[in-house]
Amino acid sequence: MAIDLNADLGESLGVWTMGDDDAMLSLVTSANVACGFHAGDPLTTQATVATAARRNVVVGAHPSYRDLIGFGRRFMDVSPAELTADVVYQLGALDALCRTAGTRLAYVKPHGALYNTIVHHEEQAKAVVDAVRAFDDRLPVLGLPGSVFLALADAAGLPTKEEAFADRAYNADGTLVSRRHPGAVLHDPAVVAARMVRLVVEGRVAAIDGTDIELRADSICIHGDTPGAVNAAAQVRSALLAAGVTLAPFAP
Amino acid sequence: MAIDLNADLGESLGVWTMGDDDAMLSLVTSANVACGFHAGDPLTTQATVATAARRNVVVGAHPSYRDLIGFGRRFMDVSPAELTADVVYQLGALDALCRTAGTRLAYVKPHGALYNTIVHHEEQAKAVVDAVRAFDDRLPVLGLPGSVFLALADAAGLPTKEEAFADRAYNADGTLVSRRHPGAVLHDPAVVAARMVRLVVEGRVAAIDGTDIELRADSICIHGDTPGAVNAAAQVRSALLAAGVTLAPFAP
Amino acid sequence: MAIDLNADLGESLGVWTMGDDDAMLSLVTSANVACGFHAGDPLTTQATVATAARRNVVVGAHPSYRDLIGFGRRFMDVSPAELTADVVYQLGALDALCRTAGTRLAYVKPHGALYNTIVHHEEQAKAVVDAVRAFDDRLPVLGLPGSVFLALADAAGLPTKEEAFADRAYNADGTLVSRRHPGAVLHDPAVVAARMVRLVVEGRVAAIDGTDIELRADSICIHGDTPGAVNAAAQVRSALLAAGVTLAPFAP
Amino acid sequence: MAIDLNADLGESLGVWTMGDDDAMLSLVTSANVACGFHAGDPLTTQATVATAARRNVVVGAHPSYRDLIGFGRRFMDVSPAELTADVVYQLGALDALCRTAGTRLAYVKPHGALYNTIVHHEEQAKAVVDAVRAFDDRLPVLGLPGSVFLALADAAGLPTKEEAFADRAYNADGTLVSRRHPGAVLHDPAVVAARMVRLVVEGRVAAIDGTDIELRADSICIHGDTPGAVNAAAQVRSALLAAGVTLAPFAP
Repeated sequence: MAIDLNADLGESLGVWTMGDDDAMLSLVTSANVACGFHAGDPLTTQATVATAARRNVVVGAHPSYRDLIGFGRRFMDVSPAELTADVVYQLGALDALCRTAGTRLAYVKPHGALYNTIVHHEEQAKAVVDAVRAFDDRLPVLGLPGSVFLALADAAGLPTKEEAFADRAYNADGTLVSRRHPGAVLHDPAVVAARMVRLVVEGRVAAIDGTDIELRADSICIHGDTPGAVNAAAQVRSALLAAGVTLAPFAP
Repeated sequence: MAIDLNADLGESLGVWTMGDDDAMLSLVTSANVACGFHAGDPLTTQATVATAARRNVVVGAHPSYRDLIGFGRRFMDVSPAELTADVVYQLGALDALCRTAGTRLAYVKPHGALYNTIVHHEEQAKAVVDAVRAFDDRLPVLGLPGSVFLALADAAGLPTKEEAFADRAYNADGTLVSRRHPGAVLHDPAVVAARMVRLVVEGRVAAIDGTDIELRADSICIHGDTPGAVNAAAQVRSALLAAGVTLAPFAP
Repeated sequence: MAIDLNADLGESLGVWTMGDDDAMLSLVTSANVACGFHAGDPLTTQATVATAARRNVVVGAHPSYRDLIGFGRRFMDVSPAELTADVVYQLGALDALCRTAGTRLAYVKPHGALYNTIVHHEEQAKAVVDAVRAFDDRLPVLGLPGSVFLALADAAGLPTKEEAFADRAYNADGTLVSRRHPGAVLHDPAVVAARMVRLVVEGRVAAIDGTDIELRADSICIHGDTPGAVNAAAQVRSALLAAGVTLAPFAP
Repeated sequence: MAIDLNADLGESLGVWTMGDDDAMLSLVTSANVACGFHAGDPLTTQATVATAARRNVVVGAHPSYRDLIGFGRRFMDVSPAELTADVVYQLGALDALCRTAGTRLAYVKPHGALYNTIVHHEEQAKAVVDAVRAFDDRLPVLGLPGSVFLALADAAGLPTKEEAFADRAYNADGTLVSRRHPGAVLHDPAVVAARMVRLVVEGRVAAIDGTDIELRADSICIHGDTPGAVNAAAQVRSALLAAGVTLAPFAP
């Protein structure tokens, strides 16, 4: 039994800090690192990937729409050609920072509004797939199970990896409960940790209606942007280790 | 007898165009391509490097201070660590756009105020050298003869290449006549072309005081940002070819 | 018989130029001036509004989504609160540049994707109305007849002005023919000029199906971003003057 | 006996927060608010100035070089014309956010590297003065005693106000001890508070060499970018009030 733990890191910008990268890089096995379009000036990014390299945390790219002020959380109706070029640019920039810090780019997980959009938006999903394949056709992509993005990536021959969300409730059909509904986000770290142990050990979690559903994941996404989130992440990690689960990156 | 012709290209930004990249890519053997910090959105850049690839024009990176509004022409007192990370970021981003367009980054020539600053500014010059070496320690750098930048690059083991400026007057000591002095910029394309032929064939040009000086160059920098500049560039190229000079990139 | 002629101006950015503001400011009576979010560095903008002031051309704000690289042509799913603050910011910035150049902001016409979005998007339309009203509740807004934006502006007590597009075909119901359909854009300057004379003199134009429709406008939008467009604009102006129409800004 | 307390506020950016504006707006009488060039998205800025308005804290503009990534802390060699237009743009933008929040721009204090540069850089100092005067020639400017900026502002007829720095040591000649020297920054809040009381009550502080110097100030600059800084600011305020000093804005 093994699982990967991933988190969004490198999301500071110049003087402004976001989360506690240092703490999180002691907890996760994969770091989704911002590429400068929604967060991450090059110097901060370099420090983050250097720390990841020292701790054997695998680095993935976390490309975004070009939207610093909106933190990449606002949908932008960019053309597929623009999006492909924007993602290639970000992958190359981050990979260079990785290689000069002693590691390399090992996977791609889109960020924020782009992540959410390509769950269903075929043109933008294909644009991201095109970018990753053009950059390196053996680079795994990490995304939402059932998304158009993963389907197109798989069809294009890219390795695809699925993630579960530690602090999110699931519907009986395996989709995420919308954040607009009460109960969509789980706040009790002990509950979150127990659910993730069960996910890895049994391949099951309780859905929001109380039924048990089968769920599989190559990676569990945890958050670290608040002190509380870091604590919750630490509990998930501890609970998994205590249950005999091996924590290991999915990317080679 | 062989020489390289280089020009600054890829300096459009979104809807705004600068120069005639298509025409210039029929004239030069090396293209210094903007990396997004002073010009060059990823989609435009991708098109420029794809055209360069089709025409066997070698692509070099043209990194800059982060200053779109000022086109990288304004000195910025960035720290060495910031500058190194900024340059690595730009090199990686452009290299990715090159590789997805069928070519690769073959050299580095800093842009604008950064180019001028590292003629003499040791800390920033070293920061750029550190960036190039960390990115790829066999990547040639192109710069001004006698500059601190080339001296530090050479000391760091990077291949160094020197450029002459087709339309600039030289002092008797081989330095460029400052743009603040009359006669600093040569406007007659025939004169410019004849000077460049003599530079390549004899290794000499007339200085502004009328004396002859020895000058050597691995590359000649020509401009293409106006229709007149494109014409002048075409005359330099024609004159060199007519004199039996081979035009070939310095970078392998 | 009087009409206003408006055009989008001040859309250069640093070294990059767009259109021929000087020529256009001899033709139009109202200038929609970019506010820095899709185009227009402050120095260029200041020069544009100073020229407008000297020629008695009225200046309107042309606020946009924050998207320099996309020239404000890409829909962005910004929240109403963000949009209101973004528009207030732009109005204030442009007004200050106007006042230091001897004129003042006299109306508001949203730009590009924002203009198109608030034809139908109630939340964003209201956000723009809220911004204008908070900034100056007597400032006229210029927009598309029948748009949600003008309806909400009118309901909020703002003076509303309607524009016709010189080079666009109209459907029989008075709406614009979509750019996706052939014939949507009219290219013959003589035809365009004749249509605009008829619009002002008779209040009618021929729709794309050949029927005559009634159309009224407070202003005619003309383009000046290419030499051809400037010529076409000049023909519209000449034809209107020849027909005895007075050209005058709608804003006091 | 009365004094103004000022602090740099509104320096968050989108999701990234800086300092505790809410706490500081209970302590200061004047807020230097970022204008979007080094920090401050319009929505955040609007909230900051609205809170200031509710608490009767006077708002001043804190204009900067255009350098978000560097937080305006890096010297930029901008031309005077560019700088004047950039500052006018920022003043107008912030003033509009103020007026829509029920207050108005009451003074100008340049930020960061710009503040430091115009202590001695005549061209840039004059450019800022030109901007303020063109925007509103009765607007006070706040700066460093003895600076070229205040001298030129005074010569241009602008009201000038001088500030002292609560946590900085002074040389015997009344200048600030450079941050490169040990002891330049005072860390003990009790010491800081006592010094500021003495400054206001006696017009004197102890210089770093132990001698007493005369110092006068219209405003005391305090910092609030860390929890410790907020505490220190609160102690300065309490000590001044306990000493019978009235805290009141210098701007009407």
